[in-house]
Amino acid sequence: MRENFQEDQSSELIQKAQKAKIAASLLAKTTTEQKNKALENMAEQLIIEQAFILAENEKDIIAGKENGMTAALLDRLQLNEPRLRDMAAALIQLTKLEDPIGELLEEWDRPNGLMISQIRVPLGVIGMIYEARPNVTVDASSLCLKTGNAVLLRGSSTAIHSNKAIVKVIQHALELSGLPIESVQLIEDTSRKTASEMFKLNQYLDVLIPRGGAKLIQSVVQNATVPVLETGAGNCHVYIDETADLKMAIDIAMNAKTQRPSVCNACETILVHRKWASKHLIDLCTALREKEVRIHGDETLQQVGVDVIPASEEDWGTEYLELELALKVVDNVEDAITHINRYGTKHSEAIISSTIENVEQFFIEIDAAAVYHNASTRFTDGFEFGFGAEIGISTQKLHARGPMGLKALTSTKYIIQGNGQIK
Amino acid sequence: MRENFQEDQSSELIQKAQKAKIAASLLAKTTTEQKNKALENMAEQLIIEQAFILAENEKDIIAGKENGMTAALLDRLQLNEPRLRDMAAALIQLTKLEDPIGELLEEWDRPNGLMISQIRVPLGVIGMIYEARPNVTVDASSLCLKTGNAVLLRGSSTAIHSNKAIVKVIQHALELSGLPIESVQLIEDTSRKTASEMFKLNQYLDVLIPRGGAKLIQSVVQNATVPVLETGAGNCHVYIDETADLKMAIDIAMNAKTQRPSVCNACETILVHRKWASKHLIDLCTALREKEVRIHGDETLQQVGVDVIPASEEDWGTEYLELELALKVVDNVEDAITHINRYGTKHSEAIISSTIENVEQFFIEIDAAAVYHNASTRFTDGFEFGFGAEIGISTQKLHARGPMGLKALTSTKYIIQGNGQIK
Repeated sequence: MRENFQEDQSSELIQKAQKAKIAASLLAKTTTEQKNKALENMAEQLIIEQAFILAENEKDIIAGKENGMTAALLDRLQLNEPRLRDMAAALIQLTKLEDPIGELLEEWDRPNGLMISQIRVPLGVIGMIYEARPNVTVDASSLCLKTGNAVLLRGSSTAIHSNKAIVKVIQHALELSGLPIESVQLIEDTSRKTASEMFKLNQYLDVLIPRGGAKLIQSVVQNATVPVLETGAGNCHVYIDETADLKMAIDIAMNAKTQRPSVCNACETILVHRKWASKHLIDLCTALREKEVRIHGDETLQQVGVDVIPASEEDWGTEYLELELALKVVDNVEDAITHINRYGTKHSEAIISSTIENVEQFFIEIDAAAVYHNASTRFTDGFEFGFGAEIGISTQKLHARGPMGLKALTSTKYIIQGNGQIK
Repeated sequence: MRENFQEDQSSELIQKAQKAKIAASLLAKTTTEQKNKALENMAEQLIIEQAFILAENEKDIIAGKENGMTAALLDRLQLNEPRLRDMAAALIQLTKLEDPIGELLEEWDRPNGLMISQIRVPLGVIGMIYEARPNVTVDASSLCLKTGNAVLLRGSSTAIHSNKAIVKVIQHALELSGLPIESVQLIEDTSRKTASEMFKLNQYLDVLIPRGGAKLIQSVVQNATVPVLETGAGNCHVYIDETADLKMAIDIAMNAKTQRPSVCNACETILVHRKWASKHLIDLCTALREKEVRIHGDETLQQVGVDVIPASEEDWGTEYLELELALKVVDNVEDAITHINRYGTKHSEAIISSTIENVEQFFIEIDAAAVYHNASTRFTDGFEFGFGAEIGISTQKLHARGPMGLKALTSTKYIIQGNGQIK
């Protein structure tokens, strides 16, 4: 009995993966107009069907409350009319972005007469693994559709009613648009076993994208054999150099830490040059305390009598994601760079300085997706970069690094025209 | 005792990985001139130390013969003066290629005054896992060095003396050039256990590149959590359409199959349109037989009385890599595309046709790294494409697809200049 049950579970995944592969081959030749029309229909259907979606979402909310879900998580799970309207607006916005598919990237001739061109094509089938945010269901589906990819969605069990409802509505919109409904499919079985099978579904999936907390992402990175677009974890630093302007340094440090502490591009450790610290450390700590930021300070801070929680080795590697940070005094830009390259997650790192040599050294030697001079790390974001959309922020070095726009969901193909060439 | 021994084994890998990471951070800021000088020194040292290298190589050859290694494998393992001269010449050639590191890819301003630029940077530390070809040791080391990456080499136990000798010579050249000798390191422990540890060394390795047969590559893809650049397997097809020119079709099919059957861009299955087949099949089969190509034919071929080995389902998926192929008659271009997308490995696929609509359909619908019209699949190669170097041919869709030149060994970094911007 148990075994049959498990067989059925795995067959949902395999069956949907097979259908996704067929849908992907059809989507690859769909025109920009067809894709944009489908996005418009999706926006329209989200509004038309909002009563249905909200009723299903309510079931998840009730279950979440019964299971003691925190207020923050319930808020992420909650849908309502304004949120659905925002989702619909984002879909319309997406229709206005340039379609990357078919773009001619390069073309050249060879001495033997071969004409080679490289064009942008969809990736194929994308597996999206995410947590209890039903808005990711709409977001991921629409970005994949715009780039001609089929998507297999694997959301959280805590959002299963919301996700089923949204995918049903999206599939209806696809049908109205004459596109395969299997372009967007939800894996309804939210067991760990099925997720693990997805990790290794190289035969059908071209890429896996995890969206969520550090644990989810590490679980995918550590277990998947399907290529992964790693996103998320950000242990970001602001380094205040000897020659940093006082107001600018404090403004940027405060913004990077406090403007939205729960996101990956928020600052987690501030490094301060010893000479700047000797003059302005109290100002910085006062500003942080005014915003109720808990400070884990290094030995220097403790010695000079600043009232801080003593920082341990663990603090340098901690992504607090709250009004809490680590603070360390360093002797020079080299020390700052060494610390960041040791403890950072290669996401976003900032230097505040008026010394151009130090800035250049920081730019070259820091190993991160985005390196800032005199600006907040909070700008590492697809919209802030002007991409008009964001899949996530890649912290790996292959394929895409930093904020990922639509192009990150594409691959390329070489087209070679000959007239009988042989080797 | 056993356990201690294993601890020592793993510590060689970890120790060298740690040193590689430090070397990588130094290489990232090395100038093009320094890197080219090191390549020149490597070329010179290979010649100066050829007696040493050949003597060490001879040990591997003797062991190979004792262990019954095939003549083909012994030939791949064998070094000699001309082969060392060729390697040295390739190193000098590499100094002439443009250094991709530091290239400005894009730059733009944002309305808030932020200036964003994207530059090309090294990947970091590359793990190279390969089989008994000592030339890969030089090839991989030099390509990684040119692109500012440190490399951990894990070759075959059957080439261990050759590899140790070559890496010793390379490290001496690095030393002479003032570059860290840990830029190129050989993992001398060739146990499977250490290879498996390398697969999961995400903390130190930015990418793994397997070079060798399909089994090796699949083992890495199926077991690695470090991102992999998948290369190699090529079940390539030539489709001869109804309107294909007779001579051109036969020339290309013969070239793609017989010019060098052992390589990944050689043709493994020929698909023939029924109408072309009814006129010219005998000519094609005669040409194949003259070159002693064994033909696995489908039912149609068997029915019309062509003398072939009956093709089984397995044949459509077989990469023969010998003078042997599968031959199938199809009804139209759609059937050819369906067959290729089902059985191909997304490497290189050719259509021979004079019907422009069919060619366009083939270009759009075939899911492969390189798609050819009226040319041989044998041109899928970094040198034939004009890249001046080749890391391998990627059959995956992330990061790089098709022949990979130096740029495939690079990542990018965003540099953001501000004057106090906060969000």
